[in-house]
Amino acid sequence: MANKVQVLYDFSAEPGNNELSVREGETVTVTNQNIGGGWIEAQNSRGEVGLVPEDYLELSKPSPLTGAGTTTAPPSVGNVAAAPPPDLSFFDAFAPASTPAQSQVDAGELSPQPDTPDTPYLPHEQTSNGGGDPWSAWNTDATGGASNNWASKPEGTQTGRSAAPDPWGAQSHPQAYQGPGAEEDEWDDEWDDVKSSGYAESESGEGGAFQRGGAQGTAMKISLNKFPGFSKSGPELYLLAKQLVKGSQKLSIYMGEVGPVWSYPDNQLDCVVADPKKGSKMYGLKSYIEYQVTPNTTNRPVNHRYKHFDWLYERLLDKLGSAIPIPSLPDKQVTGRFEEEFIKMRMERLQGWMTRMCRHPVVSSSEVFQLFLTYKDEKDWKTGKRKAEKDETVGVMIFATIEPEAPDLDPIEVEQKCDQFSRFTKAMDDGVKEILTVGQEHWKRCTGPLPKEYQRIGKAFQNLSSVFNSSGYQGEATLTDAMTAAGKTYEEIALMVAEQPRKDLHFLMETNNEYKGLLGCFPDTLAVHKAGIEKVKEGDKLVATSKIGPQEKVTMAKRVSTMSYTLQAEMNHFHSNRIYDYNRVMQLYLEEQAKFYETIAEKLRQAHAQFTTM
Amino acid sequence: MANKVQVLYDFSAEPGNNELSVREGETVTVTNQNIGGGWIEAQNSRGEVGLVPEDYLELSKPSPLTGAGTTTAPPSVGNVAAAPPPDLSFFDAFAPASTPAQSQVDAGELSPQPDTPDTPYLPHEQTSNGGGDPWSAWNTDATGGASNNWASKPEGTQTGRSAAPDPWGAQSHPQAYQGPGAEEDEWDDEWDDVKSSGYAESESGEGGAFQRGGAQGTAMKISLNKFPGFSKSGPELYLLAKQLVKGSQKLSIYMGEVGPVWSYPDNQLDCVVADPKKGSKMYGLKSYIEYQVTPNTTNRPVNHRYKHFDWLYERLLDKLGSAIPIPSLPDKQVTGRFEEEFIKMRMERLQGWMTRMCRHPVVSSSEVFQLFLTYKDEKDWKTGKRKAEKDETVGVMIFATIEPEAPDLDPIEVEQKCDQFSRFTKAMDDGVKEILTVGQEHWKRCTGPLPKEYQRIGKAFQNLSSVFNSSGYQGEATLTDAMTAAGKTYEEIALMVAEQPRKDLHFLMETNNEYKGLLGCFPDTLAVHKAGIEKVKEGDKLVATSKIGPQEKVTMAKRVSTMSYTLQAEMNHFHSNRIYDYNRVMQLYLEEQAKFYETIAEKLRQAHAQFTTM
Repeated sequence: MANKVQVLYDFSAEPGNNELSVREGETVTVTNQNIGGGWIEAQNSRGEVGLVPEDYLELSKPSPLTGAGTTTAPPSVGNVAAAPPPDLSFFDAFAPASTPAQSQVDAGELSPQPDTPDTPYLPHEQTSNGGGDPWSAWNTDATGGASNNWASKPEGTQTGRSAAPDPWGAQSHPQAYQGPGAEEDEWDDEWDDVKSSGYAESESGEGGAFQRGGAQGTAMKISLNKFPGFSKSGPELYLLAKQLVKGSQKLSIYMGEVGPVWSYPDNQLDCVVADPKKGSKMYGLKSYIEYQVTPNTTNRPVNHRYKHFDWLYERLLDKLGSAIPIPSLPDKQVTGRFEEEFIKMRMERLQGWMTRMCRHPVVSSSEVFQLFLTYKDEKDWKTGKRKAEKDETVGVMIFATIEPEAPDLDPIEVEQKCDQFSRFTKAMDDGVKEILTVGQEHWKRCTGPLPKEYQRIGKAFQNLSSVFNSSGYQGEATLTDAMTAAGKTYEEIALMVAEQPRKDLHFLMETNNEYKGLLGCFPDTLAVHKAGIEKVKEGDKLVATSKIGPQEKVTMAKRVSTMSYTLQAEMNHFHSNRIYDYNRVMQLYLEEQAKFYETIAEKLRQAHAQFTTM
Repeated sequence: MANKVQVLYDFSAEPGNNELSVREGETVTVTNQNIGGGWIEAQNSRGEVGLVPEDYLELSKPSPLTGAGTTTAPPSVGNVAAAPPPDLSFFDAFAPASTPAQSQVDAGELSPQPDTPDTPYLPHEQTSNGGGDPWSAWNTDATGGASNNWASKPEGTQTGRSAAPDPWGAQSHPQAYQGPGAEEDEWDDEWDDVKSSGYAESESGEGGAFQRGGAQGTAMKISLNKFPGFSKSGPELYLLAKQLVKGSQKLSIYMGEVGPVWSYPDNQLDCVVADPKKGSKMYGLKSYIEYQVTPNTTNRPVNHRYKHFDWLYERLLDKLGSAIPIPSLPDKQVTGRFEEEFIKMRMERLQGWMTRMCRHPVVSSSEVFQLFLTYKDEKDWKTGKRKAEKDETVGVMIFATIEPEAPDLDPIEVEQKCDQFSRFTKAMDDGVKEILTVGQEHWKRCTGPLPKEYQRIGKAFQNLSSVFNSSGYQGEATLTDAMTAAGKTYEEIALMVAEQPRKDLHFLMETNNEYKGLLGCFPDTLAVHKAGIEKVKEGDKLVATSKIGPQEKVTMAKRVSTMSYTLQAEMNHFHSNRIYDYNRVMQLYLEEQAKFYETIAEKLRQAHAQFTTM
């Protein structure tokens, strides 16, 4: 295991973090390569041992992935997308036989399977600011202009996460707060095993790994690409299909009070994600976390690893993504040093994602989602899995299963609705990002300078009190006892201030972050609709040039109307959930804030009472 | 009045402040020279009119003082002391005939007297940071080492005040908060008329105008200098006096529970400083502010201008300063643009000073203090004034009037007590400065970034709410009305946060600032005692070398014991007042802080109640 390697870049250890400073060109001995989180334990020529960022070392491992470590400059924020896509052939060698569709998504297996020991990490970012900012991940560009997605051009350079090079740092925020910006680490085998979803790079070719980000919905790109020869213009496949899918489950849309609505089940599905357990395989060489997922329907827990959630996400994206924005999973984290906090945070976010999926009538009633929640045994899971992967009613063909119980819409109305939703989701995206930006700053202040100041006020009172105590003047204690207590009160307030964001701001941020991810899926969803509308507008021309027949034109208009009903039902679902979510999170925030200030006031009243009335 | 002048230095106008940007070498026309506060209204060649700092212009006024405006660089913080001392001959020409003693202190006249029209200002500092910091005046060097005074060397370069070049700026703090650091402006005739106490420069020669600063007690230097030939070593004059002052009022010291104490009157003197009125003289060419001072003994108001307070201060310093630390008056302010705020602040500080003087049994019973509070008419005032100025029981001779009703103290005990007080006052000085430093930072945060952040949170909520309102979704208002209200609540909280320091921190700062000034007088007072102790220690040697006789040695020991009783009585007075003051201000602070947080909590509860329970 111990091998000598060359240092590629200078690295300055942070004091107290077990890190080792190294200089470019220096040779160090790797003493432990299984630290995880992008760190390697190494020993220098003076015998000093400490952690060094893995990608600062020229590790000559027999893996094609380490090539990324030999680039000429340290990977930094903004250029990670330029790293070469991982060569998957290494993993394919171990992959079980699979259908062509499965060659892209082969991670959902429950059965023991050969796994890759010591899978090397992709290089991580190393930022100079120490990554003490838990919200920097959120790429809140509200102040800096439109988001990438809304500007309608794919960008691979967006990343705000800092891979805190501070393994046991003094920062009290969980690493897990780094949020869904941590997108470049696809190989986080310390916490889960290999995720073979590298197709984003190899197929869409638009931004590589970054396509998976919270606000970077890639639903349509992926789904459309699954139909060879299907042009990017989109929904023609459905609009002009000679024969719609037969035998598929039909999705009804009703006219509700608010307009078109999905058919909601009488009992809402829900589930609990809990009880994360560390499992291992390959004779203990590889470990992973397994979560217990218990639906309220069966009340029988099933176990799933992160990669199973990811498999489910891919299936939902393929099948429903054209009609329903499927938010990305909480991303894999680059760091896992605060193991418990990290697992807790991932679990919390997986729970949030599952809850949202359960709440959606179409998602929750889908066969693949039901399979995920209620499979009986491994055989059942495997069978269902293969079936789901063979499902051909995916992409825009989902519209073929939709049956709106209402008259067809006028194409002009269809377009107006689409534009309205487009404006709204764009505006909300801006609003959500503003809250994330402001909240991030507030978080920083509340956990940084503000409590420090209260602490200093507390210390100043106590110091003066202790001077007073030395006066030798009789009856001094009546003042100094009270003054010392007042000083201690301000120290308590300092602690309260620093801890408060986890109690309220955290949930406000999480909710808005979830919505940021969800809103990031809309541009793609809306693009399908816009493409459909454009096609219908061209109808006359297409008939005139005999590209389609007159009947096909009528069918197109009818089908685009179905698409519009779908969109409206989905928007109404979105609105009703949004109102519920924001009502809830605002109430929680204000309630916790009020309690916080009440507690401070109470403490101050107690401190005040210690003084002698004069 | 309108004359063309050259611009000496570049000046950039702050937007919204009626200022005019000028370039070095440019010629402007002075349109109004009576703006005050160091500003001149001028018009440039493009016809634009605005304010320019006076000392940025080469004003060719026929006054010897304007020479300061032609120095080669703009006066800046730290080099003001280098400005030439004002030539007083200009004013002497107008001064009424006076005794030799009065030639130093000629400002205390009530009778109409010729005054100097348009007395030019001394150059003011112009700081680049805009002077938005109200506490910067306080020279809180707790973190930067010992204060000047405690380090036992006079320094003339100490000044932290910034003469805010922002006449109507957005800063909401009163200029008056600039505090007693504003020491270089002796000629503030906008708010009071000329103060002819320029002797600090011409006589003590130690730091000039800066000797008058809050923490710069100069009691002894001034008093000792009044006895020609009296060496700086100090208290010999008293210790070796052949005959003690006769006919003087005797000051008794009793043994109380806490040790030696002054004799306190049955009814404590108090007074109210109120009702500031603008007066004018010289046919309206000069204006000043007159305050009404009403003692609780006569309940009859008397009028005094700032310069009368200053005259009183000088008399008390001369007469009692060796035994009793006489805190400096609140200093004249360089800026008076917020006229009302400034007057209010000066009045508040004059009130604080008078209250402290009233509380002191020796000061309050002194003839000169009684004269100040209870003179019947101008003739009465004038007569009393001349008498006070002729008083010869000043400086260390005050000890000759003290009669402790207790046995003589052992010189070793005397020295121990003195050292103890020295340690205590030094330690308290550090503690007080720490509070001022921390408080100043807290003030800045509470009036700067913190409310801005709450405002942004409020705006973010309201913006998102307004986006939600545009959804067109039915029942949206149940959420958006509440969310908008929550946003407005955070805007209200922002205002509250910004205004709170005036309601609590202000008094904490004022009290500590007062104590900083008072503590700054102790080194000089203690130095007199230490010199006395040293003299007594030398007793045997002095007898051996026949410099004194054996009886004189005994007298010295007895008298140094009297001095020690005086110091102890004064320290006990200080301690009892200190305990009272800090008890009071801490209670006020905690009470207001508790109320503040309670109000915030209440507002948040109200905002919370607007949301629909789900």
